Amino acid sequence: MEGLNQHHPYVPKDLDLPGFVPGFLSQSTILAVYGLSSLLVVSLVWFLSGRLPKLQKIDRLLMCWWLFTGLTHMVLEGYFAFSPEFYKEKTAHYLAEVWKEYSKGDSRYAARESGVVAVEGITAVLEGPASLLAVYAIATKKSYSYILQVVISLGQLYGTAVYFITSYLEGDNFAASMYYYYAYYIVANSFWVIIPTLIVVRCWRKICAAFPIQEKRKTKTR
Amino acid sequence: MEGLNQHHPYVPKDLDLPGFVPGFLSQSTILAVYGLSSLLVVSLVWFLSGRLPKLQKIDRLLMCWWLFTGLTHMVLEGYFAFSPEFYKEKTAHYLAEVWKEYSKGDSRYAARESGVVAVEGITAVLEGPASLLAVYAIATKKSYSYILQVVISLGQLYGTAVYFITSYLEGDNFAASMYYYYAYYIVANSFWVIIPTLIVVRCWRKICAAFPIQEKRKTKTR
Repeated sequence: MEGLNQHHPYVPKDLDLPGFVPGFLSQSTILAVYGLSSLLVVSLVWFLSGRLPKLQKIDRLLMCWWLFTGLTHMVLEGYFAFSPEFYKEKTAHYLAEVWKEYSKGDSRYAARESGVVAVEGITAVLEGPASLLAVYAIATKKSYSYILQVVISLGQLYGTAVYFITSYLEGDNFAASMYYYYAYYIVANSFWVIIPTLIVVRCWRKICAAFPIQEKRKTKTR
Repeated sequence: MEGLNQHHPYVPKDLDLPGFVPGFLSQSTILAVYGLSSLLVVSLVWFLSGRLPKLQKIDRLLMCWWLFTGLTHMVLEGYFAFSPEFYKEKTAHYLAEVWKEYSKGDSRYAARESGVVAVEGITAVLEGPASLLAVYAIATKKSYSYILQVVISLGQLYGTAVYFITSYLEGDNFAASMYYYYAYYIVANSFWVIIPTLIVVRCWRKICAAFPIQEKRKTKTR
């Protein structure tokens, strides 16, 4: 189906995408490039952070996460947010390929649904650079490290909530098949639900623990 | 224009709202009810919080804000989120009147645009009750008071960002006139940009100040 020019593989079938050019790269190639480049970046952070003084393993893991998610936001999602015509790309431009492929799981990307574009824009422009700042904040043990991580994680959670709720409200019928629905729409996004939730819980506890004075005073008053 | 049955006062004019029933209450009546009931609630919190021990004026003001915004989220926005047919309301139901009137500033409310409904749903269900929890947390000086206020304020800011960006992406042509555009869409929403921003800045500073140990240790290392 992808071989036919002007015809797209997305659902709904009547989605109008004039000038659509099918993807050139296979799913495994696209995933391998993303997986291997992420692995490279994460390994580099893990190795370098091991040479920094007094960093716990959990801090080093978090630095890996923030660099990975920050680059994903800025490079992949940044490209999407500002490339309304990615589906017309005539070459095997990797970033266009990513979104031609992902649109099989959620055609609102190709259709440029405003809720999706708004969320991706905020994610790319604000959360991306903020995630890189989090890597620096953890490495240098800044006092704003925990609150910054809460702020970004909440942004990710809010964005994902808007993403899923708008799809539900619009009929939840944007995946080319059940396989793409679960693999791309559910599983891929679930990382940005589970990990930010764990980070918010951890940082919330750390921040509350930093306010022991008020707690003790309150207990005495009772 | 509002007197004609089946015809609505909203822009775009070709927006299809079958069964639309014009509003019964005047703008001044709607605003007076909202303003006076808010004033009553805020006065009550101000008076009662004055009897609590060791609360600063800023804390009491914040308690007023959180009760006001929490009730606005739960009552006004909660009604909207779960009343898809409010524009068909045949009586002078106050909450339906509010949204029939507000839709003059942004017809996406009557049109039930998915981004708007998603944001209002999250605001009503999560941020509303959380705002009431913030009133309690400030009154009882809970250790989670600051982080809770950051979390809710960020949700409000994110929601407002999605709200404005989706409108921009869809052409920003949903107001019945420039008057409604500025009075409802810009001015009314600006409170939920300015106040949450101030609260985030204040709480961010308070939280960072609670982590002095790491800061000092870092300074020594330099």
